[in-house]
Amino acid sequence: MSPYQTTSSQIVWSCPWYRVRQDRIITPDGRPGVYNVVMARPAAWVIPVTDQGEIVLIYTYRYAIDAWCWEVVAGGLQEGKTVWETAVTELREEIGGVARDWHFLGRFYTANGFSNEEGHYYLATGVTLSEPTAHESTEVLEIHPLPIAEVLRMARAGEITDSPSVTALLLAEPRLREMIAHPE
Amino acid sequence: MSPYQTTSSQIVWSCPWYRVRQDRIITPDGRPGVYNVVMARPAAWVIPVTDQGEIVLIYTYRYAIDAWCWEVVAGGLQEGKTVWETAVTELREEIGGVARDWHFLGRFYTANGFSNEEGHYYLATGVTLSEPTAHESTEVLEIHPLPIAEVLRMARAGEITDSPSVTALLLAEPRLREMIAHPE
Repeated sequence: MSPYQTTSSQIVWSCPWYRVRQDRIITPDGRPGVYNVVMARPAAWVIPVTDQGEIVLIYTYRYAIDAWCWEVVAGGLQEGKTVWETAVTELREEIGGVARDWHFLGRFYTANGFSNEEGHYYLATGVTLSEPTAHESTEVLEIHPLPIAEVLRMARAGEITDSPSVTALLLAEPRLREMIAHPE
Repeated sequence: MSPYQTTSSQIVWSCPWYRVRQDRIITPDGRPGVYNVVMARPAAWVIPVTDQGEIVLIYTYRYAIDAWCWEVVAGGLQEGKTVWETAVTELREEIGGVARDWHFLGRFYTANGFSNEEGHYYLATGVTLSEPTAHESTEVLEIHPLPIAEVLRMARAGEITDSPSVTALLLAEPRLREMIAHPE
């Protein structure tokens, strides 16, 4: 139950990707205040693993931080789809991937201090690659299949700076190490 | 190097905690576009570990997602401080904690699709607790020292939904398991 009382709520700024909701609140100690929430769509993160024992990483430019980043496949909820259907679609669109099996790793909040964005993290196994079907023009990316152990090393060494990608990889680590020990 | 060209940049919305910067861009394929970035302060996440083999978790209400959450200590950059000095201050303010040793776990982006927020994650060991020195009135939290193994179980079971907290805990997991095996 919320310890805050919300006395009003309005959208004060919006763009096609997210909106800012401004709430007037009464804090638990009885004082009036304001809380601004960046209302974002849920998003999916997908670790694609091939039967050759590789994780398909993406090397992409992230405009918001002006940097090239190693990441797993990710994307915001697509119109008319569930988050899982979005994950399946992003895998195909970004790397031309189709998975044999899907494993749900969990649902998390990426930045709960100021945004409601939730991320659903997946491990996709038995992935086969063909041509990516679509890239948004705001996406610039390279596709790099790398050995599972190398990607786990990169995650633990801080070379992957996308926090949700690291969360997903380390959550999947026990299962990924099993795959190294017992390949298909 | 950025594959985008930025033709203009302006702050289109702001509040005391973050601002929205709207850039007019030319995409790599030559089309005009817009990119809106939520400009947030860097923030610190801290795993507090006591010599009694406990991690001090916080159970707090997060207004942005209308939920009570298990988390490690966290807070946005404080005026005039570095991120590490903020971490030290947040540890004292939120749980009354003072650490003997600090270990830097890495620097990550929490939501690089739409925000530049960066998180610096720390492991603080030899933590002793006294009275918290300050709570912001927008913070509602309980302090729960729990056995290291129990907290790692919670992180792996999806019971901790704050993605940066989970990233930090799993990055620190090898060192934390060492502490269980070889207590001070």
